[in-house]
Amino acid sequence: MTSSDKSDYLPTDWNNQTELGERLHRLLTLLFPLNRSLTGDGARQTLHLLREHCLPDLRIHEIPSGTKFFDWTVPDEWNVQQAYLIGPDGQKVVDFDDHNLHLVGYSEPIRCTLSLAELQPHLHSLPELPDAIPYITSYYQRYWGFCLPHKVRAALPEGDYQVVIDTRLQPGSMTYAEWVLPGESEQEILLSSYICHPSMANNELSGPGVGVFLMAWLASLPRRRYSYRLMLVPETLGAIVYLAQHLDHLKRHTLAGFNLTCMGDERCYSFLPSRQGNSLADRIGRHVLSHIAPDYQVYSYLERGSNERQLCAPGIDLPITTLMRSKYGCYAEYHTSLDDLTLVTPAGLAGSFLALRRAIEILELDDRYQVTVLGEPQLGKRGLYPNLSTRSSGGQTQDMMNLLAYSDGRLTLFEIAEVIKVPFWQIAPLADILLGADLLRRVNVISENSVNS
Amino acid sequence: MTSSDKSDYLPTDWNNQTELGERLHRLLTLLFPLNRSLTGDGARQTLHLLREHCLPDLRIHEIPSGTKFFDWTVPDEWNVQQAYLIGPDGQKVVDFDDHNLHLVGYSEPIRCTLSLAELQPHLHSLPELPDAIPYITSYYQRYWGFCLPHKVRAALPEGDYQVVIDTRLQPGSMTYAEWVLPGESEQEILLSSYICHPSMANNELSGPGVGVFLMAWLASLPRRRYSYRLMLVPETLGAIVYLAQHLDHLKRHTLAGFNLTCMGDERCYSFLPSRQGNSLADRIGRHVLSHIAPDYQVYSYLERGSNERQLCAPGIDLPITTLMRSKYGCYAEYHTSLDDLTLVTPAGLAGSFLALRRAIEILELDDRYQVTVLGEPQLGKRGLYPNLSTRSSGGQTQDMMNLLAYSDGRLTLFEIAEVIKVPFWQIAPLADILLGADLLRRVNVISENSVNS
Amino acid sequence: MTSSDKSDYLPTDWNNQTELGERLHRLLTLLFPLNRSLTGDGARQTLHLLREHCLPDLRIHEIPSGTKFFDWTVPDEWNVQQAYLIGPDGQKVVDFDDHNLHLVGYSEPIRCTLSLAELQPHLHSLPELPDAIPYITSYYQRYWGFCLPHKVRAALPEGDYQVVIDTRLQPGSMTYAEWVLPGESEQEILLSSYICHPSMANNELSGPGVGVFLMAWLASLPRRRYSYRLMLVPETLGAIVYLAQHLDHLKRHTLAGFNLTCMGDERCYSFLPSRQGNSLADRIGRHVLSHIAPDYQVYSYLERGSNERQLCAPGIDLPITTLMRSKYGCYAEYHTSLDDLTLVTPAGLAGSFLALRRAIEILELDDRYQVTVLGEPQLGKRGLYPNLSTRSSGGQTQDMMNLLAYSDGRLTLFEIAEVIKVPFWQIAPLADILLGADLLRRVNVISENSVNS
Repeated sequence: MTSSDKSDYLPTDWNNQTELGERLHRLLTLLFPLNRSLTGDGARQTLHLLREHCLPDLRIHEIPSGTKFFDWTVPDEWNVQQAYLIGPDGQKVVDFDDHNLHLVGYSEPIRCTLSLAELQPHLHSLPELPDAIPYITSYYQRYWGFCLPHKVRAALPEGDYQVVIDTRLQPGSMTYAEWVLPGESEQEILLSSYICHPSMANNELSGPGVGVFLMAWLASLPRRRYSYRLMLVPETLGAIVYLAQHLDHLKRHTLAGFNLTCMGDERCYSFLPSRQGNSLADRIGRHVLSHIAPDYQVYSYLERGSNERQLCAPGIDLPITTLMRSKYGCYAEYHTSLDDLTLVTPAGLAGSFLALRRAIEILELDDRYQVTVLGEPQLGKRGLYPNLSTRSSGGQTQDMMNLLAYSDGRLTLFEIAEVIKVPFWQIAPLADILLGADLLRRVNVISENSVNS
Repeated sequence: MTSSDKSDYLPTDWNNQTELGERLHRLLTLLFPLNRSLTGDGARQTLHLLREHCLPDLRIHEIPSGTKFFDWTVPDEWNVQQAYLIGPDGQKVVDFDDHNLHLVGYSEPIRCTLSLAELQPHLHSLPELPDAIPYITSYYQRYWGFCLPHKVRAALPEGDYQVVIDTRLQPGSMTYAEWVLPGESEQEILLSSYICHPSMANNELSGPGVGVFLMAWLASLPRRRYSYRLMLVPETLGAIVYLAQHLDHLKRHTLAGFNLTCMGDERCYSFLPSRQGNSLADRIGRHVLSHIAPDYQVYSYLERGSNERQLCAPGIDLPITTLMRSKYGCYAEYHTSLDDLTLVTPAGLAGSFLALRRAIEILELDDRYQVTVLGEPQLGKRGLYPNLSTRSSGGQTQDMMNLLAYSDGRLTLFEIAEVIKVPFWQIAPLADILLGADLLRRVNVISENSVNS
Repeated sequence: MTSSDKSDYLPTDWNNQTELGERLHRLLTLLFPLNRSLTGDGARQTLHLLREHCLPDLRIHEIPSGTKFFDWTVPDEWNVQQAYLIGPDGQKVVDFDDHNLHLVGYSEPIRCTLSLAELQPHLHSLPELPDAIPYITSYYQRYWGFCLPHKVRAALPEGDYQVVIDTRLQPGSMTYAEWVLPGESEQEILLSSYICHPSMANNELSGPGVGVFLMAWLASLPRRRYSYRLMLVPETLGAIVYLAQHLDHLKRHTLAGFNLTCMGDERCYSFLPSRQGNSLADRIGRHVLSHIAPDYQVYSYLERGSNERQLCAPGIDLPITTLMRSKYGCYAEYHTSLDDLTLVTPAGLAGSFLALRRAIEILELDDRYQVTVLGEPQLGKRGLYPNLSTRSSGGQTQDMMNLLAYSDGRLTLFEIAEVIKVPFWQIAPLADILLGADLLRRVNVISENSVNS
């Protein structure tokens, strides 16, 4: 069982947004330097650290190279001993030890000496961001290369360059992790993120960070209506592997899910729907963002680019949506060394956590209610009307009257929140008060929810 | 049977809008001074006068104090003998005999002498409307108070004030009235208004006035497809009482209904939908207003505040909508002495009557028609084309062609009016012409209309 | 069988838009001078010329005067020998031999001498277009008259005018033509146009011209999924006659249809929906125009005015829509001598042909596809990803990924094109590539399409 008392990284109080953001940022700082990739020790160590510090029951799996899943095959495992480039003057021009983005992901081993002209096809930089190291990989085509700031590249003198890339690209395994936290129902909420990006923060350490925190928070709750499944896998291939192993179960049990990515900056909130576009997760996601960030960016599924590509593919069709901060591909620092732990902030992370927590709370607390009297109840004689009509709670009376006016046993609390245009979390406590006053009775919703309907 | 010949208040010609407005305004002038309230002689006399002058078959009921309905109990009956406030100089500062709004509704009896400071918690005025007497009640909490123009209140000198409130608040009864005018069908159209407001005109004497006129007009018709039910009850409690007594019948028989309130000024038209929002009454109401006042104000059910709160409550769910002039709560004079018979005009009242009459005519005349020939009929050989294509009736030919083009036996005349974007009352006469020319046959709609579907 | 090799009017290469436009314009030039009307030799010769030069299997029918169909009767046949007006100075003022619009259609024969004042009720001109000869007919009311430019009329001197109208209005027949080109399915696509307009070009020679070209193009195809039916009939009455003869067959077999009219100018594209508004033809028509002319004009069925009035009438209900250029009634030259072969251009005609061809290709090629692998396929290992990711084909990769992402066996290719917001013809070739790579399999759509559903 997760116990945040024993962790230096989990918050002691899940309602303290400040502490939560700082702890989550601290966790990302721990993991940031590791050289995550599609396979290899970086991803493996990342998962082991998450298990050690946050989720003791996290299950870590190794899938051997060469294993086939759907249309894909797990490639050789890639690890880096050292990689650097020495210039004509004998000085190191770029060094993997300085920043793991300097080396193209999955670079094959090589040692050679090349002229600058011969070297150029193996160099990558961004003229429009001259200080940034770009992030480049070549998973499925043998290649090697270095990434460097354009201003460094532009200043390279003519002459001979010595290339040293000591990598191992050989049969091994691909590593991923999962954890299923049981609830009262076998129906599951899926939280999916990925752990294949080297030293970048928004895309991607924020996603697995928030996912781990959400699971730890859920584990701290006295009860959960639904079961929760966390999957931390390499992007694309890892999702393919996981789906191939669990497809029937996931299709039968997944009520809703969230793809966790790009959750760390403070610039905006963004929403990317599921392929079908109107699943429960979609509707809840839009509700949450419309209230916490009314000007949030709405993207189309046509602008997808993360693991929803697999989770929502035809024949898989999981009802997965994405609530994020600045979307991958849509911010300047994306896939460069500038996507770091200054771009990603404690407040940014805490905001994303809260958005997802709100969405989960809707899933956990939504119910159908029916008013117990015909016509409007007389709130005054129950002390509800005067108690509530003070200056500070004027809106609350209106909310309560609206809640009663729509509690017809057909609409759920979430649907009522949508109709009366207030956040779910604003009326859920009122439903409890009215329940306590015997003015509402609960018509439980959970048994009627059908998966993937 | 109502006979307008015998009344000085009903019009002699229902198609004369000018006479109709003047007669209706005269009726309101008769009723205006009475001290209507939740109970008491003011409401009782109002109903008796309406029976005497307009609706001889109006049935008036008395419900004893203490009787319970749904969540409510009929309170003690309240009547006023006299009520005034004498200032330090021995002069009456405010006097109920001058304006019945001066006394807070349901003020308990009291005689005492107070300093100005002690008196202030019992005084009510509106700084933003310094000439207006506000309308205040305290039905369910024992209290007394005076309402007065702010400019009078602000000028009150220090000193002792003598309070004289001779009211009776003791077991009696609550009074309401109803009338069911039978038609060919047992399905009913409900007209609901309320009679609990003292001397105010738009909110509320215009509503019961228009309701009584509509019933008298309906009674004057040679035939009625539907039955019509008028309920004139105190707001909220009266609706609760009435619903509790008739709920099964109303739910089974009410095809559509209109809440009648705020129907007297000339500023605008307003629409407030039923809770479900798309009942037949809603669709007809929007149709009527969109043609007689295209810039009418549309409100949401979230802005409700009249008896639709009870009529549309969960489990009651009557398909009731509200067509009105300036909406309660949305005009400056609302609930003050400025809401008087200068704000409410003959033209304003006549316009509201006509809007409701149009809505009722749609209910009465709507039918499904089917064109009797395949392809367009040759109107020319029937004298319909040349007859109609004069300069003044150019649009009529187009309307007739459109009516034929959509009379497929599925759409009703009302639905066709919506599709071809003309008022129902513009094409209903054309349907009669085409029926006479054997180009349309009627597919009667009435038997297919299911209540509350 | 149609063979374009043998025709001077059909193109040798259906993909050469320039040649196609020029050939079509040449065909219209051949037909332009004929005096088409509701009946008579002009319409008859037009159909015989189309059979001779373009569609050797066109079937031409004659319906005797006096035959009744639905609400209509075929009138006497009308032919003109000569018609002119001689002024006071003995000179011909207007002469049918100069322009067949000079004579009111269906003018009865007459020889008389009239003063200018007596003549005026028989003269028609347009003050707002002083150079134009208007187009006037009086099919069902005995009348005679001349049409002339307003500037000529205004200059007519007082004096005696000699009227010579040698026409024959006597029992004969009404002529129309049809051709059914069989396909693999008995389901039919209906192409309907009309041949009753004298010397005008946009409204109407462009419609039958494009219709004939479409049929010749369809006949040149190696296979056709659907059967194609061309009807060339006089407007209104001809459609009535045709429908009366074929109604059961058309209702059972017509999957979609297009009314062909006003297809020759270059100003804009216009769309007029079917009565129901959302038939397959409507959806396809809007798709085509939204991609080839995003600013196309959308009209309502309330603005109808061509044979869709009969084809979409209640009880007939064929799913017919209209894609056109400048709509009848909506351009200055409409129904005047200015609607000529300078207004109608080769490019205008070729554009309309292509729009209809695109619509037909969607009908012919649409299918349901299902992706054959779960999750995204690995395009790279099939040479599809690198082959496509060149600078010029960047969008193609995205289209291909989107096509795979939505090929769930439920959406058709057309529906996917709508969802991913690209033209059908942009992704149809990609579906073929993916089919060839065994990444898609076809779930044939044709057997599931139900007519008039």
